[in-house]
Amino acid sequence: MTATLRVSQNRLEKFIYEAFLKTGLPESDARTMGALMAEADLQGSDGHGVIRMVPYITRFKGGGVNLTPNIRVVKEKAAMALIDGDNGMGHLVMKQATELAIKKAKTAGVAWVGSVHSNHAGPASLYARMPLAHDMIGLYFAVGNANHLPPWGGLSMLLSTNPIACAIPAMHEAPVILDMATTVTSYGKVKAKRQRGEMMPEGWMINRDGTPLLDPQHADDGLLLPIGGYKGYGLALIIGMLAGTLNGAALGKDVVDFNHDASTPTNTGQAIMVIDPDAFGEVKEFKERMDSVIQEMRNSERIKGVDRIWLPGEQSHQKRIDYARDGIPIPDALAKQLHGLATELGIAPLVAN
Amino acid sequence: MTATLRVSQNRLEKFIYEAFLKTGLPESDARTMGALMAEADLQGSDGHGVIRMVPYITRFKGGGVNLTPNIRVVKEKAAMALIDGDNGMGHLVMKQATELAIKKAKTAGVAWVGSVHSNHAGPASLYARMPLAHDMIGLYFAVGNANHLPPWGGLSMLLSTNPIACAIPAMHEAPVILDMATTVTSYGKVKAKRQRGEMMPEGWMINRDGTPLLDPQHADDGLLLPIGGYKGYGLALIIGMLAGTLNGAALGKDVVDFNHDASTPTNTGQAIMVIDPDAFGEVKEFKERMDSVIQEMRNSERIKGVDRIWLPGEQSHQKRIDYARDGIPIPDALAKQLHGLATELGIAPLVAN
Repeated sequence: MTATLRVSQNRLEKFIYEAFLKTGLPESDARTMGALMAEADLQGSDGHGVIRMVPYITRFKGGGVNLTPNIRVVKEKAAMALIDGDNGMGHLVMKQATELAIKKAKTAGVAWVGSVHSNHAGPASLYARMPLAHDMIGLYFAVGNANHLPPWGGLSMLLSTNPIACAIPAMHEAPVILDMATTVTSYGKVKAKRQRGEMMPEGWMINRDGTPLLDPQHADDGLLLPIGGYKGYGLALIIGMLAGTLNGAALGKDVVDFNHDASTPTNTGQAIMVIDPDAFGEVKEFKERMDSVIQEMRNSERIKGVDRIWLPGEQSHQKRIDYARDGIPIPDALAKQLHGLATELGIAPLVAN
Repeated sequence: MTATLRVSQNRLEKFIYEAFLKTGLPESDARTMGALMAEADLQGSDGHGVIRMVPYITRFKGGGVNLTPNIRVVKEKAAMALIDGDNGMGHLVMKQATELAIKKAKTAGVAWVGSVHSNHAGPASLYARMPLAHDMIGLYFAVGNANHLPPWGGLSMLLSTNPIACAIPAMHEAPVILDMATTVTSYGKVKAKRQRGEMMPEGWMINRDGTPLLDPQHADDGLLLPIGGYKGYGLALIIGMLAGTLNGAALGKDVVDFNHDASTPTNTGQAIMVIDPDAFGEVKEFKERMDSVIQEMRNSERIKGVDRIWLPGEQSHQKRIDYARDGIPIPDALAKQLHGLATELGIAPLVAN
């Protein structure tokens, strides 16, 4: 991937904001979308940032998303809420959900807010991270927006790579932030192997007869594998039930493949949980214990050839620092696509800053 | 494994109760231990049931466990509590924790109760299941009691196979119950391969140089692999932080290997979360949606040679039915060990009923 264009987070935010304003989002919603999508790119979640602009706008044009939703709390107790996204963009729904969960956790100690009639919300870690600013822990679960995974032993694509994310604050160390899909690899990585003409390692995919699929040219005929076999299937399923079925959102055959359908509402479900460490004891002491565990892991004896032990989220944390300094890289093909979009919408194109 | 002895759940409960009474547990605690450990065997969690009696009693004798603990709530808010187990058996601590979480979830919608100064509590699903009787969802996290897993790329055994369990009720279908360790396999399965003189499949373990370890005779020199590589490492770590570090319980090098140390308190940490579906909408409708998702998975097209698609917990559910009817099988070696224990303690031995 060559990326000759690098842009600042601010510039990227403004570009996304202007594009969404032109496509019909209210000003404050366009601003929220700009902030969250640019932050996705800043942390290196480049499969879930500005690369999604054109697919999102395709769904706007197809009528699949409500541009002026009435996002509202429909159920509420001291430590929970259910938010109806009214088919608005998931970013708007889950930002509101997370802010509400933070507020409730301050009082109740722990809170859980689910969504129904939501949409794709970008990378899971965006929302799991939000409580960190309040020295709180975030956990995020979502039903993915395209089914790529069968139940274990099966061939019918009934599950998505339903992700889980968890962000836990530390004192001097970077927060621990896990953001993972429940499959061994993503379709994006399979496509990258295909482009480079490389074979895949055993364990990524299987053929429909259960044998290992190694040639990515045949990926369309195969199945992604869940992590740990039946365990990953189980995880994908319970995440889907907690983020989808509990809220009345889609799971299984009801999931709409938003890459191939621009008009049907997805009824996406998500959930954010917030835990306030202040309820459990001294926050300072908790964060010091976190530092200590983090340092133990990092200082582990290493397998020969391994330069460094990484903590979950540490590489992404480093990208935030690098990209804030050097700009966010926009791959050439994406830069060209976004230039076309700017021309079409009559907004200023992204150029190096 | 041959098991010529089969006993009823009631008989097994009584045996465990009498043994613990003789070894110094208060009557009501001995009764709770009997009920929970026999239930573990009933559901087929035979690595976590009566097989643990002798190791537990070894720790009692070694002074590693407090036989008359003052288990108490030390922190509390509307949707959370922290329970100090006072170094009592984990079963007693986590039963109390789960009952409190159920009570709080009825009011607050969701609740989370953590433990500190606890001990091994048996299979994770025992506690995740308890809310099912109230049509509620349970999630359980624990720090394992022996470190078998290094951080990804490392060689130092700093993590346990920290389990996660989740139980979700359905209407006519059996509840979905996931109970999984974060490693591809357990040491128990490795030992079984060794006993049978079989090789292990690639992906179970690696040598200390990172190459696949296939011969279980050399297992003591190798490392268990986490599910999905760095993903399973990340899961084991965040489960440990949520169940351990948050509560002030041990994680990392502070974890005491209770198989090799009978006297040091383990300071085990666990957490139970309860979600009340009634807060999210009509429980009946939720449970019907669960049935529908379960049936979709089961009816998936299958890979050739696969007879049936299982839901998480379905095989364990079947064992409950079979063992309730036929009795719980006690492997010969275990039966012999328990016979010795009965003689030593002067209680009635387990015999076929």
